[in-house]
Amino acid sequence: MNDLWFYENHTPGYEVRWKIKDILHDEKSDYQQISILETFELGRIMTLDGALQVSDRDEFIYHEMIAHVPLAIHPEPEKILIIGGGDGGALREVLRHHRVKNVAMIEIDRRVTELSRQYFPDISSGLDDPRARVDFADGVKYMAETNELYDVVIVDSSDPVGPAVQLFSYEFYQNCFARLHDDGILVVQSESPFFYGETFVNTYKNIAAIFPQTMSYLTTMPGYISGPWAFTLGSKKYDPLVPAAEREAIAGMKYYNEEVHSAAFVLPQYIKEMLR
Amino acid sequence: MNDLWFYENHTPGYEVRWKIKDILHDEKSDYQQISILETFELGRIMTLDGALQVSDRDEFIYHEMIAHVPLAIHPEPEKILIIGGGDGGALREVLRHHRVKNVAMIEIDRRVTELSRQYFPDISSGLDDPRARVDFADGVKYMAETNELYDVVIVDSSDPVGPAVQLFSYEFYQNCFARLHDDGILVVQSESPFFYGETFVNTYKNIAAIFPQTMSYLTTMPGYISGPWAFTLGSKKYDPLVPAAEREAIAGMKYYNEEVHSAAFVLPQYIKEMLR
Repeated sequence: MNDLWFYENHTPGYEVRWKIKDILHDEKSDYQQISILETFELGRIMTLDGALQVSDRDEFIYHEMIAHVPLAIHPEPEKILIIGGGDGGALREVLRHHRVKNVAMIEIDRRVTELSRQYFPDISSGLDDPRARVDFADGVKYMAETNELYDVVIVDSSDPVGPAVQLFSYEFYQNCFARLHDDGILVVQSESPFFYGETFVNTYKNIAAIFPQTMSYLTTMPGYISGPWAFTLGSKKYDPLVPAAEREAIAGMKYYNEEVHSAAFVLPQYIKEMLR
Repeated sequence: MNDLWFYENHTPGYEVRWKIKDILHDEKSDYQQISILETFELGRIMTLDGALQVSDRDEFIYHEMIAHVPLAIHPEPEKILIIGGGDGGALREVLRHHRVKNVAMIEIDRRVTELSRQYFPDISSGLDDPRARVDFADGVKYMAETNELYDVVIVDSSDPVGPAVQLFSYEFYQNCFARLHDDGILVVQSESPFFYGETFVNTYKNIAAIFPQTMSYLTTMPGYISGPWAFTLGSKKYDPLVPAAEREAIAGMKYYNEEVHSAAFVLPQYIKEMLR
């Protein structure tokens, strides 16, 4: 049997490799190289330009944490926007909230979504929900031009290289602020505080310069770079630490629960000090 | 310049590699292969039989969490035992508590401690404290034979291969229980719940079969395997979630604080379910 490995270079001095059972798909889309691989440790994975985006085994961690934290804080999350998130995982989690009336997902690369439908039936299972609308367009441009207003905006981007760079800019967050209702919430994935400290701190500072309340919260993703993984949340009105009283109970969570909500906002001293 | 990397095989399908500036030392001791390497990402590291044990850049996370959690719970932690921990990092943290009167450290491999003194002056800085006593002996045998009684026992072992296997056994934890005062606390490093689930669950179940209160708590170590890293704590009397009121304030922590204490005991749903 062949000894095949997928290599990911997290930094110039730190690489991981995952042993592969099978290469299921590999193509160059208009935006990036997309591969679908079957691994021994993480099950099926999708990589974009050589970076692991999503794996069947640990995707629940990232998707539950990017979706349920903001939706638990907002008492009436009816209209939701997802920028990026082409695999559909964040969408699937958002749709578990029955109070959500419609979700728009703006993904730049149609092929990411088509391949997720084909190879990740569980992750992509929300794409045909009648409350969901998927547009293949540039999220940065969409935010600059739309007149829609949202309750929650979720930025589920890849790393700030290639097509995702603008999704980490101050101007983009300003547009997100403008497209949120007066009690709206923005959440963005904000990278590894330990290994990509500058991106993490800049993201926090950009959002904190715009939103009245800004907080980062943490998880740790086995398939991503080691150590903590951060999300950063900007809120116009609601205290991120106080989940809405009317929040609905959602069964079958694999990561999120009420205690996890509060604990995720507790930052170790060294991360607190980075944000001072 | 040479392109040198240190490889670590976490599982048969998952490897990491860290780029090396310099190989400072390499020897075969009576127990294991010990290397001291200068890396780009983690600063100086010590490896034992090819597994990263300690790095200058992230050691504070592991050492603060293995030491300050049990010492914050116990109202009068005067007599402490550390099994393993030959680099001295757990000892250094324990000694920051002024109520600690004496600490015994039982390390099997004298060379680990000698090399830590030579190459990790900060990590090993507690070794000459008048309250500390270091014995180079087999921790399993020590626990079976000693008549001493302790307030807190900390098991800072390497992975359960080679010399550390017995440190994960039911019999060893029984001896720990017997060598603790009636209000004593045991804490053991208990591996990665995600990648080494069986070791994590067995460790928890072994301790829970002996101690009236058993809880696992989590951190994430950038230099170790990705995802959560667990410690498991058995307590004869004190509730692990309630730090002692008289607890002393210790300045200069880089990871631990009161909120981190509580948050670390909050387990994601999938880990809670593993322990049911």
